[in-house]
Amino acid sequence: MFESAELGHCVDKAAFAEQEPELRAALLEAQYALKQQNKHAVLILINGIEGAGKGETIRLLNEWLDPRLVRVNAFVDASEDERKYPAERRFWQHLPPKGRIGVFFGNWYSQLISLTVREKIKSSQLDQAIGYVERFERMLCDEGVLMFKFWFHLSKAAFTERIEAQGDDPLQYWRASPLNWHKGKTYDKVLEAGERLLQQTSRDFAPWYVIDGSDANYRSLAVGRTLLEGLRAAVSQTSTARHATHSAPLAARFDRRQLLGALDLSQKLDKADYKQQLHAEQQRLAELVQSKAFRKHGLVAVFEGNDAAGKGGAIRRVSAALDPRQYQIIPIAAPSDEERAQPYLWRFWRHVPGLGRFTMFDRSWYGRVLVERVEGFCAEADWLRAYNEINDFEERLHEHGIIVVKFWLAIDQDTQLERFKERESVPYKRFKITPEDWRNREKWDDYVDAVGDMVDRTSTHIAPWTLVEANDKRFARIKVLRTINDALEARLAEAT
Amino acid sequence: MFESAELGHCVDKAAFAEQEPELRAALLEAQYALKQQNKHAVLILINGIEGAGKGETIRLLNEWLDPRLVRVNAFVDASEDERKYPAERRFWQHLPPKGRIGVFFGNWYSQLISLTVREKIKSSQLDQAIGYVERFERMLCDEGVLMFKFWFHLSKAAFTERIEAQGDDPLQYWRASPLNWHKGKTYDKVLEAGERLLQQTSRDFAPWYVIDGSDANYRSLAVGRTLLEGLRAAVSQTSTARHATHSAPLAARFDRRQLLGALDLSQKLDKADYKQQLHAEQQRLAELVQSKAFRKHGLVAVFEGNDAAGKGGAIRRVSAALDPRQYQIIPIAAPSDEERAQPYLWRFWRHVPGLGRFTMFDRSWYGRVLVERVEGFCAEADWLRAYNEINDFEERLHEHGIIVVKFWLAIDQDTQLERFKERESVPYKRFKITPEDWRNREKWDDYVDAVGDMVDRTSTHIAPWTLVEANDKRFARIKVLRTINDALEARLAEAT
Repeated sequence: MFESAELGHCVDKAAFAEQEPELRAALLEAQYALKQQNKHAVLILINGIEGAGKGETIRLLNEWLDPRLVRVNAFVDASEDERKYPAERRFWQHLPPKGRIGVFFGNWYSQLISLTVREKIKSSQLDQAIGYVERFERMLCDEGVLMFKFWFHLSKAAFTERIEAQGDDPLQYWRASPLNWHKGKTYDKVLEAGERLLQQTSRDFAPWYVIDGSDANYRSLAVGRTLLEGLRAAVSQTSTARHATHSAPLAARFDRRQLLGALDLSQKLDKADYKQQLHAEQQRLAELVQSKAFRKHGLVAVFEGNDAAGKGGAIRRVSAALDPRQYQIIPIAAPSDEERAQPYLWRFWRHVPGLGRFTMFDRSWYGRVLVERVEGFCAEADWLRAYNEINDFEERLHEHGIIVVKFWLAIDQDTQLERFKERESVPYKRFKITPEDWRNREKWDDYVDAVGDMVDRTSTHIAPWTLVEANDKRFARIKVLRTINDALEARLAEAT
Repeated sequence: MFESAELGHCVDKAAFAEQEPELRAALLEAQYALKQQNKHAVLILINGIEGAGKGETIRLLNEWLDPRLVRVNAFVDASEDERKYPAERRFWQHLPPKGRIGVFFGNWYSQLISLTVREKIKSSQLDQAIGYVERFERMLCDEGVLMFKFWFHLSKAAFTERIEAQGDDPLQYWRASPLNWHKGKTYDKVLEAGERLLQQTSRDFAPWYVIDGSDANYRSLAVGRTLLEGLRAAVSQTSTARHATHSAPLAARFDRRQLLGALDLSQKLDKADYKQQLHAEQQRLAELVQSKAFRKHGLVAVFEGNDAAGKGGAIRRVSAALDPRQYQIIPIAAPSDEERAQPYLWRFWRHVPGLGRFTMFDRSWYGRVLVERVEGFCAEADWLRAYNEINDFEERLHEHGIIVVKFWLAIDQDTQLERFKERESVPYKRFKITPEDWRNREKWDDYVDAVGDMVDRTSTHIAPWTLVEANDKRFARIKVLRTINDALEARLAEAT
C-alpha cells in the first residue's frame, strides 16, 4: 500500500520553481470555476504519519488557493456540548457548501486510527464503522461533494529522523490526535491501522492518495496536481454522470394490493373514551420524558401523511404534554438557499435533538421519496438511493440513544375533500389550504405507490413505521401518543 | 409599578369559556397573517415572580398558537462552549426569523435580576447593562422585531401561598434562574430589582406589560389580548412607520476637504525592505496569537477598501503567518435568505471568533453605511442608525476581550484603472472583475463621502479605523500587519 511512497521521490529547487507558478495559477482558475459553477463542494481529508507534512500541506493550500473560499476544520476531542449529539453531527455542521473547499484535519479516519492504536475498538466494531464511513462518503459524493483523501507517508527511517528533530515543542500545531508519536511502537501501529483503513475505504468515488512526505517540493506538487486534476475533471463535466443506481428497482405490485388499502379507516373513538385516554397517555408521556433515564436518550418523531390528515392536530396533542422548553417542532417546507447548497440530509441534521430532548418533524427527510419522487423534483437515481441513506441516518440516531418514531397518517379521499372544504370556510383555517393541496390530491395514486415503497424500504426494527388510521381524529391522536409512549418505554427499560 | 397588578383581577369560568374560543381563533389568524406577511418576527420575553404563571403561560401560548411557528428558548447558565463567546451571542443565535415567534424564558432581564439579588453586580455596572439592553432592544425593533415583555406579578401574600403549596418538587420546570425563591428575602429583592429594571427599560418601542398572575383565567386572557392587539397592529400597518431618526444628520463638508484626500498615497516600500519586514511582522504575529495570553482574547480584523485596493492580498499575507486551524476568513457578499430573515448584524454575529481565535472579514457590517447607503439598498434612517448599532456591536466584542482592528485600503482612481485592466487580462484574475466593479467606479465621489462619515462616526478608541495607503501593495501589507500586531501587543500587555 505504501511502497511507492517510500521510493524517495524528490523534486529539486529549480524544477519546483519552474512548475509552481503555473500550477498555482491553474489551481486558482479551477477554484474560481468551481465557485462560479456552484455545483460541487470539495472536501479534503488530511491524514497520515506525524511529520510527513500534514500541517505544511494545509498551509500550502491556503497559500496557493484563494483562502477566502477555503475553510480548515480541526476536529479534536468533542466538547461537552458536542457529546450531547451523535458524533457525526459536527462533521455535518462543518461541511463546505457548494462552490467552497473544506479541509478536515482530524477527521473520522484519525479517530478510527487513534482508537485502533490505543486498542479501544474491537475488530467487529471497526468493520462496522468502516462500513458506515463508506456509505457516508458514497452519499456525499452522490450529493456532489468531491472528496480528496490524502495520506501523508514517511518510511520508518525518515519518520524517526523527523520526530527526533521536531522535539516535543508545545508551540507545534495543536494536536489533532491524542497519539503519542514519541512512543516506540506508535509508528508501526498507525501504519498497520492505516493500511487496513485505506484498503477498505479506497473506492472509485473517493480514492485515497498516498503522498510521499519526505520531500517538501515533491509533496507540494503531488498534492497540487492531484487537486487540480480532480477539480478540472469535475468542472468540465457537462453531463451529470452518476454512479450506477445503488438500489434494486422497486418491486412491481401486480396484484394491486397495497399497504394503505389494507387499513381499516373506520376505526373510531368516542368522546368520553378519547378524553380519558388522552389524559392518561399525555400523563404517561410527561413522566417518561421527565424521567432520569430519558436524559441519556433523545426522541425524534416524524409526522407524514396525506394533506389534511391531521398531522398538526396530532403534534399539538403530543406537545401539550410537554414542557415547551424540552421539545421543538420543525415544520419542513422548501429548503433555504443555505440548505440547498448542502447534501440533502444536512437540513435535518441541523435539528437532531441532543440528549434529553425531543424533536418533532412536521414532514421530514421522507419528502425525498414522497413529494420529490412524485413531482419529479429529483432524479430517479437520487430518490432510489435515498432509502438506504435514510436508513443509515436513522441508524446513527438510534446508536446515539435517540428513539425514532415515524407516523403515516392515512385518510381516504372523501374525508380529505370534506376537510379541504372546511378549511376553506373557517377563517383561521384558510391559511392551511393552498392550490398545491388541490393539485396533490390529483396525484393520490402516485402517493399510494410512493408510500408503499417507502414503508417497505425504510420500516426497520430500530425505526419502524406506524400507519395511523386517521379518518377519526381522536383515534389517530391516541394511536400516535400511545405509539410514542410504547417506544419510549421499551427503549428506556432496555437501558436499565 | 405593580399596584394595578395587585387588585385581584379575576375572570370566572363562564366568562373565560365564552371568550376563549374567539380569542384563540383570532390569535391563530393573526399568527398566520404574520407568517404570510413575512416582515416581522415576534419576540416574547417572560419574566416575573416565581409561581405567577410564567411556565403556564408558555404552555398556553403553545396551545393557543400554532406551535410549529413558535420556538421556546430557555437560557440557563452558559455552557463551556458558550462562554468562549460574548454573552449575547446565544441570544442572537436563537432570534426568531421573520414570520416566526420566539419565546425567551431566562433572558437578559432574568440574568440581571439574578445578579442584583445575589449582589453580584455593582450599581454602575447595572446601569451600563441597562443602557446596553435598551440600545439592543431598540435595534431589534428598528429591524422589524415586535417585542412583548411580560412581567408576571403576585402580591407577597399570594406568592407566599403559592410557593408553600408548590414545595420543592424536582420535577417542576427546569430552573431558568439560580434564585432560591424559598429563601425569606428573595421575593422582596426580586421585586425591588424588577421595579428598577422595568422602570428604566419600558420604552414606547418595547413596553413592559405587568400581568396579575393570581388568577389563571385573567392572566391567560390578558396575555392573549395583549399579543393579539400587538400582532394585529403590526400586520395591518401598511406604511413602514419608523421611529424618528436616532442619529443627527451628518455634517456637511463645505470645504471639500476629506480624510481620504489627505492621505499620502505615494508611500512605498522597496522589495528588499518589504521582504525583511514582512518576515519580521509575520513572525511577530505568529508568536502573539500563539501566546498564552491570547487564549483569553480573540481577534477580529475588518478589511474594507476600494475595489482592487488589495484586500485579498493583504489578507493572505496575514493568514500566511497563522495556523490555518486558528483563523477563518469570511468573505461578505449578498446575504442568504436565512440571513435576510434576521436583523442586519445577525450574519456577522455568526462568525464572531471564540477565545483564542481570529476572524478576518473581507468586507463587513460596514456594507450598511457604504454600498447600501450609496446604492440606496436600505432607507436613509436605517443606515443612519447603523453607526450607533455598529459601535455597540464592537463594544460588545471589545468587552469580551476581542481585539477589533479595521482597515480602509485606499487607492487612487488611476491605480484602480490599471488594476482593473490587469485583472481582465490575466486568466486566473478575470474572476475578480465584474461589471459591478466598473459601475462602482462611477460612484467614486459618493464612496469618498460615505467613507468619511463612516470613519468619523465609528472610529472609536476601542476599535479605531486605520486608513491604509495602498497604491503600493507592499507598503499596504506591511502597514496592515504592523497595525494588527501593535493592537494585539498593546491589549495583551494590558491584561498582565
